[in-house]
Amino acid sequence: MSAVSGFFRSRWVTVPDGVEELDPAQLAPDFRAAGVACGLKGDGETDLALVVCDEEAVSSSALLTANAAAAAPIRVCRERCELGSLRAAVVNSGNANAATGEQGYSDALEMRDAAASSLGLEPETVAVAETGVIGVPLDMDSVRGGIGSAADSLTPSGGDAFATAICTTDRWPKRCTVKLDGVTVSAQAKGAGMMEPGFATLLCFVQTDAEVSDPEASLREASAASFERITVDGQMSTNDTVLLQATGSAGRPLPKGLLDAVLLQLALEIVADGEGASRVGRVQVEEAASQSEAERVARAIANSPLVKTALFGRDPNWGRIAQAAGMALAGEELRELGPAEIDAAELAGEELEAQLTVRLGRGDAAAHVYFSDLTYDYVKLNAEYTT
Amino acid sequence: MSAVSGFFRSRWVTVPDGVEELDPAQLAPDFRAAGVACGLKGDGETDLALVVCDEEAVSSSALLTANAAAAAPIRVCRERCELGSLRAAVVNSGNANAATGEQGYSDALEMRDAAASSLGLEPETVAVAETGVIGVPLDMDSVRGGIGSAADSLTPSGGDAFATAICTTDRWPKRCTVKLDGVTVSAQAKGAGMMEPGFATLLCFVQTDAEVSDPEASLREASAASFERITVDGQMSTNDTVLLQATGSAGRPLPKGLLDAVLLQLALEIVADGEGASRVGRVQVEEAASQSEAERVARAIANSPLVKTALFGRDPNWGRIAQAAGMALAGEELRELGPAEIDAAELAGEELEAQLTVRLGRGDAAAHVYFSDLTYDYVKLNAEYTT
Repeated sequence: MSAVSGFFRSRWVTVPDGVEELDPAQLAPDFRAAGVACGLKGDGETDLALVVCDEEAVSSSALLTANAAAAAPIRVCRERCELGSLRAAVVNSGNANAATGEQGYSDALEMRDAAASSLGLEPETVAVAETGVIGVPLDMDSVRGGIGSAADSLTPSGGDAFATAICTTDRWPKRCTVKLDGVTVSAQAKGAGMMEPGFATLLCFVQTDAEVSDPEASLREASAASFERITVDGQMSTNDTVLLQATGSAGRPLPKGLLDAVLLQLALEIVADGEGASRVGRVQVEEAASQSEAERVARAIANSPLVKTALFGRDPNWGRIAQAAGMALAGEELRELGPAEIDAAELAGEELEAQLTVRLGRGDAAAHVYFSDLTYDYVKLNAEYTT
Repeated sequence: MSAVSGFFRSRWVTVPDGVEELDPAQLAPDFRAAGVACGLKGDGETDLALVVCDEEAVSSSALLTANAAAAAPIRVCRERCELGSLRAAVVNSGNANAATGEQGYSDALEMRDAAASSLGLEPETVAVAETGVIGVPLDMDSVRGGIGSAADSLTPSGGDAFATAICTTDRWPKRCTVKLDGVTVSAQAKGAGMMEPGFATLLCFVQTDAEVSDPEASLREASAASFERITVDGQMSTNDTVLLQATGSAGRPLPKGLLDAVLLQLALEIVADGEGASRVGRVQVEEAASQSEAERVARAIANSPLVKTALFGRDPNWGRIAQAAGMALAGEELRELGPAEIDAAELAGEELEAQLTVRLGRGDAAAHVYFSDLTYDYVKLNAEYTT
């Protein structure tokens, strides 16, 4: 798995010319971060993280899960935070605070308020993110203590500590810091590690000194090409959060392609580190009748357990791809899909990454999705823990 | 698995009072069947099956897969058969004849014609069904020979031979014959056995001497409560076929609930015999805002790999069920789902069958879906064969 660990290792990431890769512990200017152990995880691992922008004139945007069973921190962010001017985020990785009722909501609110108080910020400018066990009340004594000690240990080189402290069962921290045309972007993410009795939660935090005039549009566009193109097991978490903060202090806009490259690399690391994953696939659907059709077919193929086991088993099984495409197009006219229309040869290869291409012969639209394989370890991770 | 093998063993099948269970080899009156080895499978197993109605005045109906990559036999049935007056069906279980181009279509047509000729029937009154490898040309010499010898060995007690010959990697033949109020129903099915490089195909053949005034409506209704409520891996085959033939010679209508019970028992056996399956789940969604919402949520839960591994791991993990429900209702208002709304206790039980109930608190609609668990053997079966 180490082949895609670290920055700009995936062949599918287009890196803009001239990008300089910095120490990933180093955050973008005017940002500080920390990660400490507050005791939620119980094993001494770090589980409480803070990131703060020291520049008052920050602009920000947050993408929050659409899951109707959204966790308390998601509801607090939606209802009680100024998502366009977030100065800081407080994260715990021991308890998702989901399905915890009104108590959970007030705990998430108190977590936000405690972080704001420790940082000397307005409460509405602090976002809350949580991941870990669900249905268990949050141990607020631990959280309060952790926030205090994290606030005391904030540092401009806290990227690694932060990235590590937001992990659950991730096999490696996912983070990078890059510089191009006088602009720095740092980012930290966590993905598909399983926490009992839980499921994958995607968290990502991005800091930059670029001038970002419309952070919501920038984040939405870069996420549409990265986090919204990946699937581990087709499941959407109750806690997914992606946050972008930009100070503008560099006096320059985001270089073209930089945010896309950062988010896609982190997204691909999340797929590669998916539960039990051993390989990453990319399915490209071409010649679809419409964009939505291309997306639908690509997702049906990426989520097919038969295709995912073929990726694991290195089986260039175009028949399973044809079947998944046919299912997605149920009731439509579709030409016969065989080896001439489906390129599945890379499934059989030794590479970590395998590209599939399907040409539907129905039009000009195309779409792609990245996906993990389905392995013995996926079943083991998800079946062997008993609550 | 033996606990659900055999007729009327599932607790979820409502058996009408007074049902008599007959020898499953025995077909309904005026039907004969046979199963022979024609060499397609290569291991000497039977792989060519015929069922024929000796009564000219037969009424029939066929449900055919909606998969847009439908196989040649499906297209032949749709385009070249009189689905309302089918006298016979010819089946091979060694070659799905899918993704085989125009040659495959003409082979399926020739298979139909050869069967009709051997039986002395009009070609349009013979249905064709095929399952097995895909993308491989059909060995017509073997098929022709098999049809001839199957036609020679047709017998009223051929139900077992037929049920066995339509199997692929099914662990047991699925069939039954029952009698109630002077009406006999016999049925044979195959399910989710994997054939390289293939995927599950559902085939079911039902014979009765009842008077069925609207066989399409009867079949659609009984299938809606059985075959359309099951999922093994969320995949729809290119070859799925369900066929009902009724002679009316009993002079009586189908007793209420009889066809439902037969098809549901066979459907549950198909789930129980799903690839690598070790348990069968039934998820009941209640208090949904609409029927379609209840269905959507039930299917999202039944197809969630996290719920399926929890069924395998005997983990009463209500959190995964809440998450799948929340995903299905993305963007909607949903009350928090916890242990009070989700009854997942049977997941932890020792029983083969486990019932889950979810109460959404949004309205009065309800729906249920049956599903298999996700096991090591599923991954093994689907990953270890390399084409």
